Amino acid sequence: VAPNARGATVPRVVVLGAGFGGLAVVRGLRRVPVDVLLIDQHNYHLFTPLLYEVASALLNPSEIAHPVRAILRRTPNAEFRLGQVTGVDLAGKAVVVGATRIPFDYLVLAAGSVNNYFDGVSLAERSLALKDLEAALALRNHLLLQFERASATSDPEERKRLLTFAVAGAGPTGIEFAGALSELIGLVLSRDFPRLDLSSVEILLIEASDRILSAFAPGLQRAAMRRIERKGIRILLNAPVRDVGDGVLRLQDGRVIATETVIWTAGVRAAPLAGTLGAPLGRAGRVVVEPTLQVRGHPDAYAIGDVAEIDGYALPLLAPVAIQQGRWAAHNIARQVHGAAAMPFRYRDKGIMATIGRNAAVVQIGPIRVEGFAGWMIWLFVHLLMIVSFRSRLVVLLNWAWDYFLYDRPIRLISRQPR
Amino acid sequence: VAPNARGATVPRVVVLGAGFGGLAVVRGLRRVPVDVLLIDQHNYHLFTPLLYEVASALLNPSEIAHPVRAILRRTPNAEFRLGQVTGVDLAGKAVVVGATRIPFDYLVLAAGSVNNYFDGVSLAERSLALKDLEAALALRNHLLLQFERASATSDPEERKRLLTFAVAGAGPTGIEFAGALSELIGLVLSRDFPRLDLSSVEILLIEASDRILSAFAPGLQRAAMRRIERKGIRILLNAPVRDVGDGVLRLQDGRVIATETVIWTAGVRAAPLAGTLGAPLGRAGRVVVEPTLQVRGHPDAYAIGDVAEIDGYALPLLAPVAIQQGRWAAHNIARQVHGAAAMPFRYRDKGIMATIGRNAAVVQIGPIRVEGFAGWMIWLFVHLLMIVSFRSRLVVLLNWAWDYFLYDRPIRLISRQPR
Repeated sequence: VAPNARGATVPRVVVLGAGFGGLAVVRGLRRVPVDVLLIDQHNYHLFTPLLYEVASALLNPSEIAHPVRAILRRTPNAEFRLGQVTGVDLAGKAVVVGATRIPFDYLVLAAGSVNNYFDGVSLAERSLALKDLEAALALRNHLLLQFERASATSDPEERKRLLTFAVAGAGPTGIEFAGALSELIGLVLSRDFPRLDLSSVEILLIEASDRILSAFAPGLQRAAMRRIERKGIRILLNAPVRDVGDGVLRLQDGRVIATETVIWTAGVRAAPLAGTLGAPLGRAGRVVVEPTLQVRGHPDAYAIGDVAEIDGYALPLLAPVAIQQGRWAAHNIARQVHGAAAMPFRYRDKGIMATIGRNAAVVQIGPIRVEGFAGWMIWLFVHLLMIVSFRSRLVVLLNWAWDYFLYDRPIRLISRQPR
Repeated sequence: VAPNARGATVPRVVVLGAGFGGLAVVRGLRRVPVDVLLIDQHNYHLFTPLLYEVASALLNPSEIAHPVRAILRRTPNAEFRLGQVTGVDLAGKAVVVGATRIPFDYLVLAAGSVNNYFDGVSLAERSLALKDLEAALALRNHLLLQFERASATSDPEERKRLLTFAVAGAGPTGIEFAGALSELIGLVLSRDFPRLDLSSVEILLIEASDRILSAFAPGLQRAAMRRIERKGIRILLNAPVRDVGDGVLRLQDGRVIATETVIWTAGVRAAPLAGTLGAPLGRAGRVVVEPTLQVRGHPDAYAIGDVAEIDGYALPLLAPVAIQQGRWAAHNIARQVHGAAAMPFRYRDKGIMATIGRNAAVVQIGPIRVEGFAGWMIWLFVHLLMIVSFRSRLVVLLNWAWDYFLYDRPIRLISRQPR
């Protein structure tokens, strides 16, 4: 191996993003003779599948966010750098962080996705999100504030508007959040606000297409719909959103819903960084990669997870895809370092699942379909196993048990100042 | 009892502030025939003695902040209102929350204290604080960011400045925080930043007077000084602060310290609300009250805790004082409701204590003085007992044990965006 740009004797791999994909790359390169530099705009890895539990006051941020540097203690050839990458120069083999250029021998773009508002300016500006930790905390604050405001007003119309919650998007995120919100209100806030008339509360699940959980089998979709409706959540199908105004949500079909709360879970696109590569982009701004995960025309650059799209071969935007691709990108870089050619990636489908609150989840693993309590047990087990650190697992289990047995959600804090 | 301003048949007691004092009033009025309205600008009660453990990445906000509404479930005659009280009209018997006037029959002002910068504008604007939850989280973010920045720079002078931490004020808060910071750095961050030269780290404890922990006996002061210096913390006595500039802290004696981090723990004054009463104010803007805790000339209004000063009789600004005064105010209101006269308050001294990190604390209870490990065990026990909820006690104990045995502080998250 020739000296690289930094004069070091091993190649430098720069990994952009400390999500599921980026961490899998770093771990996969642990015993490979390379220096790894992992860059992220946050100093933590976020366990995004449980973000909705932070937003619904069940978990603390620290239970789903784990310091990257703590994770990297086990990978001595990897360093971390906190920073916002502003561009990638594929030809010059460098990434740009503010005024600094960081050269690389190999690059892995694992920058993930951001919410896609499909050019809806009012949506982007006025809706709440479940895409990162700040957004989840802002959502928690907002939800609790609506109840404080509703309890302070004597105007029934205002109270109704304050207590109407519209979740746009009936995929797993929207459904898990709507279920958690209905339990937060029915089991916990009902006791915090004993003098507040909760018959004004309405949770709407608004979906543009004609079905919920479109990735699941029709039988599981029907089972999930029954469970959701039994929780008092109203499902509106074929109801694409037009825009969000001051205290109103307008649908394309002209319907107007009086609400202060629109939570957008109805679509994502690739992180904007993907656009700076100058490489061809596919759907939703994703970088088109070869079956080997290499960026076309740039064999030293890989893109994985939500930010990538294998040419002509669509994979779901799931943590297992990002993790498997991260491991594969590490494997291919190791091959390249040793002078071999990169090999094509193959996805092993581990199945999909979504929970609809206590005692109910839908699980689909190959031909296996499980729903109800059994599905929920599988969901609990898989998510607990996946959470990064042992301590978090312990605390998450404690919080879940507390909520399950005592009907309490401990983190009901409005952490910013009310107006 | 005559119908009150709201047409109800029992008098209304308005309590301003859900701190130690305010909650003691609400609990003390539980079986008294009154309606209680508790108002606070936050929806949580804050266990302020452990704020420094949030700032030093050991505890989560939810472990020291407890939702007020959860606490009030046990007091059925009390209601909560989230809001910023902008004024008190003692003559008109009403408090003002924005555009709303809320009438009262009895008032308890328990609004606490805010940092006192003694008109130092640069201090107020540029120093960090340990006075509320937002400030503690901002301090945690700032501390961790300094290390990220120090690890990204190659300029030794800049690194030294980034890693110099000045704590102004050698009272219990300053000392507890400095001790926790030295452990966060030496035991935890040293392993998170293995390539960072930590010989540049300096923690300074800067005190205007000629001694630390002025409320303690001289023997305990000396013991604490030895413990602090053994941790590598440098103590500067007789060193009043002049101002804070861009990357510098200037002392009155002309000394200049290059640092990005000044934490102010060197004085508090009464909450500004005290000034809106039109009642006579004592030192640091505190409301002067009669020995009965009644505001002079307004027998239906009480002031307690950090916001009050008994005429000619100075009490320390401690949680036990606020709690005892809260109970006493409730007792006196109950007497007044039943047509009896208010009685004078008497403080029972429960002692004072401060911890200097693992295995060391100073404790002074009447004639008893304990320091070192035994003092630390007392400190642990008392603080654990005092934490509001059972669940928090469990989680705090878990975090403490985790830190003690594994030398790890789990909450190392920078929860806002870096620049």
